[in-house]
Amino acid sequence: MSTSPAQNTPLRLGLAGLGTVGIGVVKIVQDHADVIAARTGRAVQITAVSARDRTRNRDADLSAYAWESDPTALARRDDVDVFVEVMGGHEGAAYDATLAAIAAGKDVVTANKALLAHHGQALALAAESAGRVIRFEAAVAGGIPVIKALTEGLAGNQIRRVMGVMNGTCNYILTRMQSAGLPYETVFEEARQLGYLEADPNLDVGGIDAGHKLSLLAAIAFGTQVAFDAVELEGIGAISIDDIRLAEDMGYKIKLLGVAQMSGRGLEQRMTPCLVPSTSPLGQLVGGTNMVVLEGDRVGQIVMRGAGAGAGPTASAVMGDVIDIARGLRLPTFGQAAATLRTPIPATSATAAAHYLRMTLLDKPGALAKIATALGEAGVSIDQMRQYSHEGSEATVLIVTHKATRADINAAVARFAPTGVMVGAPVVLRIEEV
Amino acid sequence: MSTSPAQNTPLRLGLAGLGTVGIGVVKIVQDHADVIAARTGRAVQITAVSARDRTRNRDADLSAYAWESDPTALARRDDVDVFVEVMGGHEGAAYDATLAAIAAGKDVVTANKALLAHHGQALALAAESAGRVIRFEAAVAGGIPVIKALTEGLAGNQIRRVMGVMNGTCNYILTRMQSAGLPYETVFEEARQLGYLEADPNLDVGGIDAGHKLSLLAAIAFGTQVAFDAVELEGIGAISIDDIRLAEDMGYKIKLLGVAQMSGRGLEQRMTPCLVPSTSPLGQLVGGTNMVVLEGDRVGQIVMRGAGAGAGPTASAVMGDVIDIARGLRLPTFGQAAATLRTPIPATSATAAAHYLRMTLLDKPGALAKIATALGEAGVSIDQMRQYSHEGSEATVLIVTHKATRADINAAVARFAPTGVMVGAPVVLRIEEV
Repeated sequence: MSTSPAQNTPLRLGLAGLGTVGIGVVKIVQDHADVIAARTGRAVQITAVSARDRTRNRDADLSAYAWESDPTALARRDDVDVFVEVMGGHEGAAYDATLAAIAAGKDVVTANKALLAHHGQALALAAESAGRVIRFEAAVAGGIPVIKALTEGLAGNQIRRVMGVMNGTCNYILTRMQSAGLPYETVFEEARQLGYLEADPNLDVGGIDAGHKLSLLAAIAFGTQVAFDAVELEGIGAISIDDIRLAEDMGYKIKLLGVAQMSGRGLEQRMTPCLVPSTSPLGQLVGGTNMVVLEGDRVGQIVMRGAGAGAGPTASAVMGDVIDIARGLRLPTFGQAAATLRTPIPATSATAAAHYLRMTLLDKPGALAKIATALGEAGVSIDQMRQYSHEGSEATVLIVTHKATRADINAAVARFAPTGVMVGAPVVLRIEEV
Repeated sequence: MSTSPAQNTPLRLGLAGLGTVGIGVVKIVQDHADVIAARTGRAVQITAVSARDRTRNRDADLSAYAWESDPTALARRDDVDVFVEVMGGHEGAAYDATLAAIAAGKDVVTANKALLAHHGQALALAAESAGRVIRFEAAVAGGIPVIKALTEGLAGNQIRRVMGVMNGTCNYILTRMQSAGLPYETVFEEARQLGYLEADPNLDVGGIDAGHKLSLLAAIAFGTQVAFDAVELEGIGAISIDDIRLAEDMGYKIKLLGVAQMSGRGLEQRMTPCLVPSTSPLGQLVGGTNMVVLEGDRVGQIVMRGAGAGAGPTASAVMGDVIDIARGLRLPTFGQAAATLRTPIPATSATAAAHYLRMTLLDKPGALAKIATALGEAGVSIDQMRQYSHEGSEATVLIVTHKATRADINAAVARFAPTGVMVGAPVVLRIEEV
């Protein structure tokens, strides 16, 4: 049906990057040639590949493919229709090669969240003026087809909110701390030894990687230009095993949760540790699995769960995009013409929520009253307050507030130190309604 | 980008059916005209509508639309590009009008699972030879974009298995029985009074509606022609509150679960009550919510959860398909050319699984041994056996088998009656590994 002559010729891929994901792509193309041809009505082939080290043993037969040591040269090859970028990195080679591919009239499929978080608008504009597409399902939540669900399946909705646990390493660390009762530092070291952490671990535990993903979802959801710099980022390094236990006592789990929502005040994008109800799908998510929650004004809440990383899942997402292109399914990078995407007005944590505050107080008469007064003066009212039994001269106090903005919470916290009853700084976590 | 002249003109819908879903579609088209135009680059309009009763008050302004009392006349109108069928029914008007729409060169968007389960192959062939598309996201699992995920997002995978809880009414009944401790008959009557049941309740509780949906997923997943007649159907009417409690004691929940999988023996399609682990996403699903689990050889397990019915969610799915058409995204009905879909070889419950057997035995010496012997003679071995304390001359016995095919289980059950120790027939439920 509706097959133009071009659609009966093979679709030729130039694959830049031969790490686990790249080899995962090679294996799908080789193993599933028949099923892909049945589904697209044409052959999908790799014609050329590129990586840093040609001599490395890669557990796949690459002998039929031309080799380019320079990904930009790969991107410009005449025998390449689609430039598949699974190298990573948002400056230098990946950026240059992607721009070169678009300039040479190639479509682009990328797994590179950092590249798009930093240069998404420029790349989308370039692609659209050249009549080319950039697809990036693999950049967000690995194998979960969430970009497609949001951009296409839910396109009849005003999106209310997008949420997600999109960094498997952080969720592994938090759930392992909980199940094994181990402190953050120990589990962090375990994760490092298991190879779960990026070379720069702050990309994971600092929330940066997940923040990149959130910024891409927000652009699609709200028709706004990617604004990664406006994502409020907070990592999981300050979460203690005490917080995990106290939260659990109250029926919550702590997750590094991304939330994007649009209100009259602007676009709110947060990637921060939050409390979510233990019985919710997000609360039940354990280990390295990812989950994305899409909320539309008509569809209600759609929850999608699956592997957020790994060769197979990520290559599955890459190939979903490649197959779309092979089938002639083409749409703008962020679901609407890049030139029509609005510049978002950032609204940092504008939406009110209950907050969890854990603090250590000196065991003095009136200490608790001083903290309660400070909260009251900042307009924050208290829903629950618990003081835990203690030894020595310090006490752990847990406060759950009624709904308040983060600005009000911060104003209250600023009044804590002058009371002279507080030891260190309080841990402040938002309780997200999910 | 890649906009042909046709894509800058409005896309004109002819809407057949003005029940809750139809009015849901009207409201999205009216309320979200701007966002849809931004996303598609063109206007999406309703030009004409059709329903049985023009005089009914419908809580929407239809005055701008032409009225056709005959959906076939609507389907043929010159000012209609897409025939949107939300009437229901698989014979008569819906079928005739859909064929007429295709013959008149219209694309079709339908929410009608029964129509496609019975006539999917013929309609797909007709549409594809006319160069038209039939889209049916709304026919399966309401607002969950599962057809898109399976057909497009996971197209790089060999699909291993598709599972789903896809009839919200059955899941409501089962979870309400459990939480309230009420018998099936009472909750069934509650559901009827709440308006949750179809006019013919057997469509729900007999598994037919959910079986229709499963047969559509199987066609896409395995590249086979829709084979609803080969779906092994078993409703929930025989599930007692005892079964629910006993299953829960062992860490399971009972769900009306659809499973489709392909093996060397052929295509297995089951829509039957099954036990699933209480801690699994399927086990945790309560109330009328739907869940579909897609398993691919590369992506692993993708779980999607959302509202399976209702005006908003179903209209969201309809509009997702309409917006695809407005964007020029076109693919064959079942993801590959209908002419290439294979005729499936049905393999009824060929995959071995543990089974749950609940039975009532006469309290005679050796009764349990006779049942155990019957199982052994049929080649079925026992994993767990429990006899529950009892009054009078009868005892409840629960057996969990090791993995066995349903044929072997049935052979064993056929040996039970001649033992003379059994009261009534046993309840046999598969324990699905999820």
